[in-house]
Amino acid sequence: MLRIVAITGMPGAGKSTAAEALVKAGWRRVVMGDVIRAETKRRGLELDAKGTGEVMRLLRKERGESAVADLCLDEIARTGAERVVVDGIRSLAEVDAFRKKAAVLLVAVDASPSRRYGLLKERGRKDDPMTKEMFQERDLRELGVGIGEAIALADETVSNEHESTTGLEGEMKRVVDQWVAHELS
Amino acid sequence: MLRIVAITGMPGAGKSTAAEALVKAGWRRVVMGDVIRAETKRRGLELDAKGTGEVMRLLRKERGESAVADLCLDEIARTGAERVVVDGIRSLAEVDAFRKKAAVLLVAVDASPSRRYGLLKERGRKDDPMTKEMFQERDLRELGVGIGEAIALADETVSNEHESTTGLEGEMKRVVDQWVAHELS
Repeated sequence: MLRIVAITGMPGAGKSTAAEALVKAGWRRVVMGDVIRAETKRRGLELDAKGTGEVMRLLRKERGESAVADLCLDEIARTGAERVVVDGIRSLAEVDAFRKKAAVLLVAVDASPSRRYGLLKERGRKDDPMTKEMFQERDLRELGVGIGEAIALADETVSNEHESTTGLEGEMKRVVDQWVAHELS
Repeated sequence: MLRIVAITGMPGAGKSTAAEALVKAGWRRVVMGDVIRAETKRRGLELDAKGTGEVMRLLRKERGESAVADLCLDEIARTGAERVVVDGIRSLAEVDAFRKKAAVLLVAVDASPSRRYGLLKERGRKDDPMTKEMFQERDLRELGVGIGEAIALADETVSNEHESTTGLEGEMKRVVDQWVAHELS
């Protein structure tokens, strides 16, 4: 049976760290942002926030609200993996698409705007916002897609407000182990 | 200086329990739903879902998206309280209204849909949903007002997924004490 831990959360909240905790425990990781970035590259657009945002918008328009989730499911089927962590859920439509094909635990990784801004500054990825204004614009763009609803209806919420990397990894591992144990019992 | 702990969260997540933890520590509690019910009574309408819904609509039309928050602020000013917990935040417009007048800590109390449904069944308040369908409709109504955005941009998130009442109270007290200590330092 395919099990998917679907991770949602605002930019910079710590989704990658949470996902890596499961990778260390043998789960296969699929990053929704990577799927979008690959598609952005394929379409010849810049790999910045504007380009990826535009491709996300186009994909949804062409293939529906769950477009990126469907691309991820194609990739998961190709690998044959049975324990997969999908990182970067942005809407309930995506969650529903995964639930049609797998047992899903939707986990929200949460942190305050100021904490997330600090973490993004540390990370400094090419599409990360450089100023507070850009950060707030990106937040609003994510909320516009419906990420707030996915966060609000999560099965589990993990706060990264006061956690170290190790603390967040441990907390993530704990909720997923509990889920798997419960499903198996 | 006026300090407001603003609590948001989906129906049944445990907002009242979280607020009561602060009341025990001397904070004054203002329930946004009570403010709406008082205004409904003042206008001579029935205190049912139709009456309160109509008053909410009128209030927003007359005074804007933050109307209920503004009424709460009037009440807070009347009492002269300096530490207030406001229970029932539904949108970022309300949070912004509070931030104009006070130092605000926005706390999201989170629990999964299945956990919240169970807690609401236990509570059995007159306006609580009786069936899974009514529960989901109410969730969607709250999300439609923008509660997901308030949850996504919270300063602190407290999970009530696996907590006892005492556990949730302790966790709430901890994040608020930390905030006050940090602001005073």
